[in-house]
Amino acid sequence: MSRKIFFVTGNANKVAEMQSILDLSNAGIKIEQIIEDIDEISSDDVEKIVLNKARQTYAKYRMPLFCEDTGVFIESLNGFPAANARFVFEKIGLKGILKLMDGESNRDAYMLTAICYMDNEKESHVFSGKMDCIIADSIRGTFGFGYDSILIPKSLDKTFGEDESKKHMISARAKAFRKFMEYLNNQQNPINQ
Amino acid sequence: MSRKIFFVTGNANKVAEMQSILDLSNAGIKIEQIIEDIDEISSDDVEKIVLNKARQTYAKYRMPLFCEDTGVFIESLNGFPAANARFVFEKIGLKGILKLMDGESNRDAYMLTAICYMDNEKESHVFSGKMDCIIADSIRGTFGFGYDSILIPKSLDKTFGEDESKKHMISARAKAFRKFMEYLNNQQNPINQ
Repeated sequence: MSRKIFFVTGNANKVAEMQSILDLSNAGIKIEQIIEDIDEISSDDVEKIVLNKARQTYAKYRMPLFCEDTGVFIESLNGFPAANARFVFEKIGLKGILKLMDGESNRDAYMLTAICYMDNEKESHVFSGKMDCIIADSIRGTFGFGYDSILIPKSLDKTFGEDESKKHMISARAKAFRKFMEYLNNQQNPINQ
Repeated sequence: MSRKIFFVTGNANKVAEMQSILDLSNAGIKIEQIIEDIDEISSDDVEKIVLNKARQTYAKYRMPLFCEDTGVFIESLNGFPAANARFVFEKIGLKGILKLMDGESNRDAYMLTAICYMDNEKESHVFSGKMDCIIADSIRGTFGFGYDSILIPKSLDKTFGEDESKKHMISARAKAFRKFMEYLNNQQNPINQ
């Protein structure tokens, strides 16, 4: 019998991505989306954002649920756009990011995902995943969403937009989500702990 | 006898600016700064941000207080950086903004300030002020702070960085603040209402 948990997000792409990662892990978990237009806090810190969001949402729904946030941190831009990745994407797009990076030799960046899970009001569990990457010099490929077409994982030579075959293994979101699945698995089967 | 109200901000430049505007209005109001590291919400909407911040802060201090937020909205960048003006300034600076605007012929923008005042827990009063401007093609002048050196008010041909003589009359912050002062003045002298 599969266990149901709720993913609080307005982003259907993220739900599909989590589901794909989940299918790989065969963990007997079923994810259902909750669309809840909650006020997120303004912060550079993705862990702080998901913790706040999960607490607010849990207080309302009182069901096992998790929130996720992913930031993009570009070294030569002092960490911009950080946890404001979505806002910046919507406003200036990948073209804006590439324009800011024009002529910049240091193209190091990382993606950082934080997931916060709550199934009771006293505890919250945060899982994070990081992926080092470099910013491509142009938009490359059409797979994926968000920053996928300009981020080249350091362990690959292509963007996720060009080749998404390893995305569910190595992305920041996948790493955070796998830690979360391990936690749930141990919770269900405490003998493994 | 002057009346004391509290300004919740970490930005000493803003306190000085409010005080200068206040000196012009001769309203018998004294401003004192409260530095409170409260979690602001992430939003495009400066009114929503100050309302949330004032409510949180009032619940804690229960003293007459106000919060202020100013956004910069650049038309050709879909309103970027909006209410994230400070975050963007800290990360990519005015040079980053100018780089994004490079080659852009539409340089229209506006600044929008919202102030929220509370002196009891049931009511909150929001005052806003707007200033239309254009984005300069380079950093011009050294007066002021924040975006002052790249914003040319439409009624002037210089940035506030070059000439701040009219700033306390025409800026978005000055306009919002004057509405707020009028409100306080009418509150003290209800015969004027």
